[in-house]
Amino acid sequence: MKNLLYLIAFLVTLPSLAQQPLSLAERLGYSKTDKLLIIHADDIGMAHSENVATIHAIKTGVVNSTSIMMPCAWSTEVGELIKDMPNLDIGVHITLTNEWHTYKWGPVASKSEVPGLVGPDGFMYKDCASVAKNASPEEVEKEMRAQIEAALKIGIKPTHLDSHMGCVFYGRPEYLVSYLKLAKEYGIPAMVNPQMMEGIIRPNAALFKGIDIDNIPVIDHVAIASEKIYDEIGLDEYYTRLLKDLPSGVTVLLNHIAFDDDEMQALTTKFTHWHAGWRQEDFDFFTSKKAKDLLAANNIKLITWREIGQLK
Amino acid sequence: MKNLLYLIAFLVTLPSLAQQPLSLAERLGYSKTDKLLIIHADDIGMAHSENVATIHAIKTGVVNSTSIMMPCAWSTEVGELIKDMPNLDIGVHITLTNEWHTYKWGPVASKSEVPGLVGPDGFMYKDCASVAKNASPEEVEKEMRAQIEAALKIGIKPTHLDSHMGCVFYGRPEYLVSYLKLAKEYGIPAMVNPQMMEGIIRPNAALFKGIDIDNIPVIDHVAIASEKIYDEIGLDEYYTRLLKDLPSGVTVLLNHIAFDDDEMQALTTKFTHWHAGWRQEDFDFFTSKKAKDLLAANNIKLITWREIGQLK
Repeated sequence: MKNLLYLIAFLVTLPSLAQQPLSLAERLGYSKTDKLLIIHADDIGMAHSENVATIHAIKTGVVNSTSIMMPCAWSTEVGELIKDMPNLDIGVHITLTNEWHTYKWGPVASKSEVPGLVGPDGFMYKDCASVAKNASPEEVEKEMRAQIEAALKIGIKPTHLDSHMGCVFYGRPEYLVSYLKLAKEYGIPAMVNPQMMEGIIRPNAALFKGIDIDNIPVIDHVAIASEKIYDEIGLDEYYTRLLKDLPSGVTVLLNHIAFDDDEMQALTTKFTHWHAGWRQEDFDFFTSKKAKDLLAANNIKLITWREIGQLK
Repeated sequence: MKNLLYLIAFLVTLPSLAQQPLSLAERLGYSKTDKLLIIHADDIGMAHSENVATIHAIKTGVVNSTSIMMPCAWSTEVGELIKDMPNLDIGVHITLTNEWHTYKWGPVASKSEVPGLVGPDGFMYKDCASVAKNASPEEVEKEMRAQIEAALKIGIKPTHLDSHMGCVFYGRPEYLVSYLKLAKEYGIPAMVNPQMMEGIIRPNAALFKGIDIDNIPVIDHVAIASEKIYDEIGLDEYYTRLLKDLPSGVTVLLNHIAFDDDEMQALTTKFTHWHAGWRQEDFDFFTSKKAKDLLAANNIKLITWREIGQLK
């Protein structure tokens, strides 16, 4: 009788198994209901303040992943700061924009080779729309590659790719082709969420020749504070709710960690969001006992891009 | 008898008058024995700390001239900070090197157009010798022009040219040709001292076609602290002695002003000279009552590059 029940259960399960591919969590060896989280600090390399605060939050807080902005003046410092952290989860934060008013950078590639990434002021454009309008897919691919190579040059073996301000995602579909192509070439995962997969990649599948789009690890949820969230409930409350109500599956929680110091205040001058104070709040939350307790109390399992990178 | 003595005196004086052209002081309308001084803060634009400290030392201290490093991430901030200072004496500090370990910059010109100015790490070389070895005169001229144009783009009308770490002077004679050629083209003076004039320009006069080398305003004395001075007597004592014993003629006193803060300490990491502490000492001296008193007590007249720039 028992065996018969097993057989019935097996037969009932079979069709749904055939229809539903394994979730990312399952591919990683977890159960479908596990709450898996990468706590990811964007923007390391941008400024000294960002570098020191991010490393501190990784060493003493719950941040367990970061990605570097190679076109910025302080990116080389990261190579020095992480010499004693060989297992650090650190990707390349593909940077196509320079949003700040008085702290500037240009492309890593030679400007004459990527003129579409250089604004009239000689630096990168301030917003993704200008990038999408001006930069050819060839230029963007050249710059992406230059940034990955520059990271390798300072001793960083990138664990993943993602995109500053999402310009790779919100630009042209061809940018995403290069992004996935380079991820494949360097043998690392690139952050893709369901919206990108369903909204851009699948509808343009013909563009993605040579890339097994069905096998790309798609992050179930990408969580990031917004200007509205900052104004309405504040960062602490947002992160608290997020961790309390974290959905099952793999979530990447993006934050931006720096100190509210002179350098950062000047760098973010005139910005009322994503500024020095915001970044200090991120630092404070992700180095707090509260954050650690929330992870434990809610059975959240921290994972990194390294594990995702090991998927076949 | 009195008339006869005057006549003899006149006849004796005539030949030496014929041999000696007017001193720079005399050309500027001062007497030959006047002590004229430009107190010049190098390196503005390099860092936020350097920018704020330098502007503060100009507004409240005795610093009355500066020159900007256009390849650096913070140069654009200078354009903002000096909007209310239309008469500021500010030149272009032609920058061919990037001496720091973890704070980096490359050329303003496209890297592929000035490959000899780009080291294997993708940034400018750390020292003048490497520049002299690798950068062709054409590349250096292209980069100089790009830096001047970049300054104009952020609203700076340069009053003069000088050279970071002296690489224009200690490189190849052809670099000096471009330096003087561009100064002429933009209608501004370029810092030249007697050693440069006698040691490089005159011996290579054939190279300086189209430049009236006899009419270049040559600074009588360029004073700058050295590592030896720093170690042996310290900056305060050096500047004190210098102002007490300032020679007659035109002296340019070069200093490097920033705050001894986190940004500057990180920027100058591993440097035991020209570092954050050194720059704070420069700030302290040149904003002190002592410095003002020394100028007054020793009849030192402050002049700027603007006056030199008005010479025909």
